[in-house]
Amino acid sequence: MNLAQFWDGRAKDLKEQAGGPIANPGEMAFTHELAVDLLQSIPGYVSEFKKVFKTEKIDIGEVTAAIAAFEETLVTPNSRFDKWLKGDKKALTAVEVEGYNLFKESGCVACHNGPAAGGNSFQKMGLVEPYNASVPAEGRSAVTGKDADRFNFEVPTLRNVELTYPYFHDGAADTLKEAVNTMGRIQLGRKYSDSENAKIVAFLKTLTGDQPNFKLPFLPPSSDVTKRPQPFAK
Amino acid sequence: MNLAQFWDGRAKDLKEQAGGPIANPGEMAFTHELAVDLLQSIPGYVSEFKKVFKTEKIDIGEVTAAIAAFEETLVTPNSRFDKWLKGDKKALTAVEVEGYNLFKESGCVACHNGPAAGGNSFQKMGLVEPYNASVPAEGRSAVTGKDADRFNFEVPTLRNVELTYPYFHDGAADTLKEAVNTMGRIQLGRKYSDSENAKIVAFLKTLTGDQPNFKLPFLPPSSDVTKRPQPFAK
Repeated sequence: MNLAQFWDGRAKDLKEQAGGPIANPGEMAFTHELAVDLLQSIPGYVSEFKKVFKTEKIDIGEVTAAIAAFEETLVTPNSRFDKWLKGDKKALTAVEVEGYNLFKESGCVACHNGPAAGGNSFQKMGLVEPYNASVPAEGRSAVTGKDADRFNFEVPTLRNVELTYPYFHDGAADTLKEAVNTMGRIQLGRKYSDSENAKIVAFLKTLTGDQPNFKLPFLPPSSDVTKRPQPFAK
Repeated sequence: MNLAQFWDGRAKDLKEQAGGPIANPGEMAFTHELAVDLLQSIPGYVSEFKKVFKTEKIDIGEVTAAIAAFEETLVTPNSRFDKWLKGDKKALTAVEVEGYNLFKESGCVACHNGPAAGGNSFQKMGLVEPYNASVPAEGRSAVTGKDADRFNFEVPTLRNVELTYPYFHDGAADTLKEAVNTMGRIQLGRKYSDSENAKIVAFLKTLTGDQPNFKLPFLPPSSDVTKRPQPFAK
């Protein structure tokens, strides 16, 4: 449901995205080689990969394909807003409907649109007023090298936004109230009143769908040749 | 199934244990007050606690009681060894039975006994030969203050030991092979042959039971007054 992955769109799809965190020093701080070696040392994974990919030898393409296939199952249907759109007029309260109207009329919907209420375009963060980011990221220009793409970030989906604080590419906003306030000011040149802000936030909370439902996995035991993980260097 | 909690037995039961990691600087690096404030700020937790404990105000005793109640559900029945003990003679291979016999005859069972194959006593680590630990922990004496308790540690259960590397209170042994070897040498004064070691390890792997089976929980959304977590100071 996203045109690309990561805030700057540097990965074209989930499979490409999945390779990122494995090797990112601030995330898993691992390498693709080490990840594959680790899986290859664990008989439980070797047999699973063999079943799916018909090969004894695990490679990183299979690993990221498997992660992407799992991620594709992580849909969150049946939000109250979905039900309301499908005709169940009791699914939203009057305040939430007012929030939705305000969301459309004041312009949020120009970027946050489509089935995911976002994820369709890159847009400049700080259209009306510059955004004081807490990190040096400059968005899309890091990928395209074009000056015109500076501070262009992928518009995030608003589905389940209630569950995904902190907000913005730098995580600077702790609450939806703050995020709505900032977006109004820097993207739309609009100061929402407290009451308007509360209505929009009420609407945003109707975008929380049924969360993925699966059993906690128990990982297969490692073997005597599995390399022991090394904690971050101190 | 354990006479006390932690390697040095400093917590008498699961409820007391549950309070430990919350405040441990090397684990959650939190305080009980902050933990309670956090839960109290999240309406989803307030309503759950109200349902169970009939009170609006969450306290740490309720938090640790709830964690302990969850932990008590984490049993792992139906290991192959359990089935074998109940009369299913095909549940173990000949090698695994030989490993079990060796486990009894060579003395492991003196400490690793009872339903959990451990957890019944504190024993000196390094009975025959001193253990070169990689950490300064001295075990039970840290709790009792008695010199006689130095290097006495709670005997761990061997259930699911295949899944719980690394081994020993300092995590120094990566593999069951190494752990069995060290235990034989420093506790029993015995050098297991490679074949004996392999048999005991084969037996230990029959102690893996059905793992707990529950859905991945989705946590209730935080509220505007929920304090944002602070990463470890740099």
